[in-house]
Amino acid sequence: ALPFGLISGPCQLESLDHARMIAEGLAQACAPTGTRFVFKASYDKANRSSLGAERGVGIDAGLEILGRIREEFGCPVLTDVHAADQCARAAEVVDILQIPAFLCRQTDLLFAAGETGRVINIKKGQFLAPWDMANVAAKVASTGNENILLCERGTSFGYNTLVTDFRGLPTMAASGYPVVFDATHSVQQPGGLGSSSGGQREFAPVLARAACAVGVSMVFIETHEDPDRAPSDGPNMIPLDQMQGLISDLSAFDRLTKGQMIR
Amino acid sequence: ALPFGLISGPCQLESLDHARMIAEGLAQACAPTGTRFVFKASYDKANRSSLGAERGVGIDAGLEILGRIREEFGCPVLTDVHAADQCARAAEVVDILQIPAFLCRQTDLLFAAGETGRVINIKKGQFLAPWDMANVAAKVASTGNENILLCERGTSFGYNTLVTDFRGLPTMAASGYPVVFDATHSVQQPGGLGSSSGGQREFAPVLARAACAVGVSMVFIETHEDPDRAPSDGPNMIPLDQMQGLISDLSAFDRLTKGQMIR
Amino acid sequence: ALPFGLISGPCQLESLDHARMIAEGLAQACAPTGTRFVFKASYDKANRSSLGAERGVGIDAGLEILGRIREEFGCPVLTDVHAADQCARAAEVVDILQIPAFLCRQTDLLFAAGETGRVINIKKGQFLAPWDMANVAAKVASTGNENILLCERGTSFGYNTLVTDFRGLPTMAASGYPVVFDATHSVQQPGGLGSSSGGQREFAPVLARAACAVGVSMVFIETHEDPDRAPSDGPNMIPLDQMQGLISDLSAFDRLTKGQMIR
Amino acid sequence: ALPFGLISGPCQLESLDHARMIAEGLAQACAPTGTRFVFKASYDKANRSSLGAERGVGIDAGLEILGRIREEFGCPVLTDVHAADQCARAAEVVDILQIPAFLCRQTDLLFAAGETGRVINIKKGQFLAPWDMANVAAKVASTGNENILLCERGTSFGYNTLVTDFRGLPTMAASGYPVVFDATHSVQQPGGLGSSSGGQREFAPVLARAACAVGVSMVFIETHEDPDRAPSDGPNMIPLDQMQGLISDLSAFDRLTKGQMIR
Repeated sequence: ALPFGLISGPCQLESLDHARMIAEGLAQACAPTGTRFVFKASYDKANRSSLGAERGVGIDAGLEILGRIREEFGCPVLTDVHAADQCARAAEVVDILQIPAFLCRQTDLLFAAGETGRVINIKKGQFLAPWDMANVAAKVASTGNENILLCERGTSFGYNTLVTDFRGLPTMAASGYPVVFDATHSVQQPGGLGSSSGGQREFAPVLARAACAVGVSMVFIETHEDPDRAPSDGPNMIPLDQMQGLISDLSAFDRLTKGQMIR
Repeated sequence: ALPFGLISGPCQLESLDHARMIAEGLAQACAPTGTRFVFKASYDKANRSSLGAERGVGIDAGLEILGRIREEFGCPVLTDVHAADQCARAAEVVDILQIPAFLCRQTDLLFAAGETGRVINIKKGQFLAPWDMANVAAKVASTGNENILLCERGTSFGYNTLVTDFRGLPTMAASGYPVVFDATHSVQQPGGLGSSSGGQREFAPVLARAACAVGVSMVFIETHEDPDRAPSDGPNMIPLDQMQGLISDLSAFDRLTKGQMIR
Repeated sequence: ALPFGLISGPCQLESLDHARMIAEGLAQACAPTGTRFVFKASYDKANRSSLGAERGVGIDAGLEILGRIREEFGCPVLTDVHAADQCARAAEVVDILQIPAFLCRQTDLLFAAGETGRVINIKKGQFLAPWDMANVAAKVASTGNENILLCERGTSFGYNTLVTDFRGLPTMAASGYPVVFDATHSVQQPGGLGSSSGGQREFAPVLARAACAVGVSMVFIETHEDPDRAPSDGPNMIPLDQMQGLISDLSAFDRLTKGQMIR
Repeated sequence: ALPFGLISGPCQLESLDHARMIAEGLAQACAPTGTRFVFKASYDKANRSSLGAERGVGIDAGLEILGRIREEFGCPVLTDVHAADQCARAAEVVDILQIPAFLCRQTDLLFAAGETGRVINIKKGQFLAPWDMANVAAKVASTGNENILLCERGTSFGYNTLVTDFRGLPTMAASGYPVVFDATHSVQQPGGLGSSSGGQREFAPVLARAACAVGVSMVFIETHEDPDRAPSDGPNMIPLDQMQGLISDLSAFDRLTKGQMIR
């Protein structure tokens, strides 16, 4: 099995300069371990907890920035799409289209994404069992596109809380599609701060390490140079200056696991 | 408080004749208690568990049928919308636009629905706490449209199971918006049949009665003349010939509750 | 079906005078509706959240008080037992022995309780499904004692929270044993206050009403003249001076339900 | 940090010869990695799902066997106690007294166990949050005995299912007490087979590995030479002949983690 790939970025695009700074930081953080990374950022936060929250730069400006990052850093880029008619447009620029968790059963969105031929990263809905993702993936695969990633990001557990069931990783892997573990959204506390979601940043490295020990193809970790000022998901993001240490740590577990698996 | 209103219909539109037959059955079932009903049917099942499941007649044929039912039976009609660009179109025909549970945080859909000025029935996501719905409603209300219904339809409880927390009804009612209880989707077992959702039809009347005792503005109950052959949600629908008895039963509890509340 | 019976009292025995005062209050609260009540109080709180919490008056003093209440008020009395060797002793005085929820699978306790021949009220563990209670009841029944009550008191739902699944009432009733709904423990928030359990007193009447609409044999409601000063379970108890109104309300729903059921 | 210790054995004592065979198997399985093991077995299964299930050899015969294993193999032994009056008796023989999960809030049992001065392994109740265990441990510590282990074994997640929240391991470790991860009970499906508990043996190694990556002091794994014929917990036990491979695998992750932590 290949070493794990990293999907990382600032959650929400702020500006080209900001995206460059984060991408530069990620490139440096990944260098010591030779970890490949996909730059992830959203041009639109389409389902914020509340009205007051910032939406983002929009699809045109967002794709422009992502295209520049792709070119300048030579890394694949990923963004999430929220409506069927955004898929073809985003696919002109990005390597991976991401289906948000809440939307993972929306058939038309899955079709439109699949038809672009791009890699499709499908977040598992917080309301789904791991085995339900086979039906979800089949919607994309029906377009003839088998470039599918299945992404764990926590399951509803009482109110305003998610829990990660690590049995879900091998269950989803049994589908044959590579599995991604989203460490920062898995520690979200949806709606937990009244008008925005809370998070438990301190547990993201704990869960990421567990995921690497169980065995995953990719790890998804949002980052920001100053998470407490990030326009979204700040409470669960990892500070950029801690990414190198975290990647190095995960890398060691990943190598051990992948070696073990060959055994 | 007014007597409860009923939202009912066949889940998925099959044909004009079928819709007429169901509407006629509902009119007869509601007559003895003088219960007002809203005819509900979907023109598109946009998030089926799996690929093999029927989608429906489509928006044009669907709205045509709903318009005819509205005219012929003099009842309000409701349908669910799945994308922002469907809202204005559906609003030409229907009285109530419904936001599906999975989509209840999609800001653009809530805006587009709100802007039609129609009544908006927002299903509470299976992944949300009752108090989180205030932020959801605020997205619609920001368009100047306060014609909002908040609808309970069960909360994720482990895998492939929903639970109804009746504390959620007064919690949502504290928002000032009328509360709807969806009895048939609350007994759904999402993904519970492998490639489709299961259901526990036998518990829908139990939960509906509890909801009427707690106090709600409307009750939502899907029905079919032969649920086991319905193209969707069969396992949790109430047979049409049992609707009169159920409405009469709920009516008695509703009257007691509403009287009690005045006390 | 018979009108619902009430199980009520101060949670923890404080003194004979206090028990008398509560029993007197309950007698008055039940009189207008002719509701039969069982006086419930614990002589020992054997599983408090934390060490600092009061345990109670002990088995000797407690049974003495319960015996006096039984004699003076002519009402049955109930207490909970925590070890097999307490059962025979408690059974000399009380009419109903209660098995605490955490202990509902302890075979020896169930045997010892069953062997007294008294009525046994078994609280459903927060960790059990309603259908699992048939196996629990069978342990008591194996002693030849079929005087069994099955009591719903909430199910674990995430951390520090319980949810009441009203499907559980008919599921447990299918066993043939009468079902009790414990309205005040169902709104407990276990461990929710750090070193003690919190509660949502305001929802106890809501859930009790729903239970009466679904149909139960008995309702369990703890009460205190000043809940905020009660030595245990204060946050979820109903003030004594609100009991008459609540009983009258529940009585109306119970009568409607029982009439309906005959239909 | 020290390498992880193993707690392992056949769940239920069957006979001295059987215990010897398992202990011998464990000794061999642990030898290559130099893993220390504690022999665990129960003399009484006091809370079986149903009546028909075997209880065990009893305290006298059980302690006799455990004493012999301790002497012959030179390993510490552990057993679980179910009533306060068993603690002193069991403590004459065993090194570690275990408090069952259902009983983890029973104050008198915790006191009696603590007073023996033995190491006390407290299983976290399926109904408790990780942070609630601090109050539980304080009950034991109040006896002056700080030899406490806190053991994760899964949390209620819907019906008949447990989920392991790996955030709980560092949360419990913050108490200062060593943390044990019980891999085989964490994959139990309580009541899941109708009259007995089911289990998902295949996930025990997955979760154990995740626990070792997160970092624990001990891992608890029940084993049997023929799990499908074991008198209890068969569906979640690891076959004895797979233990060496599993221990070696966990050992590699444990070493990496403990090294990492020193970093």
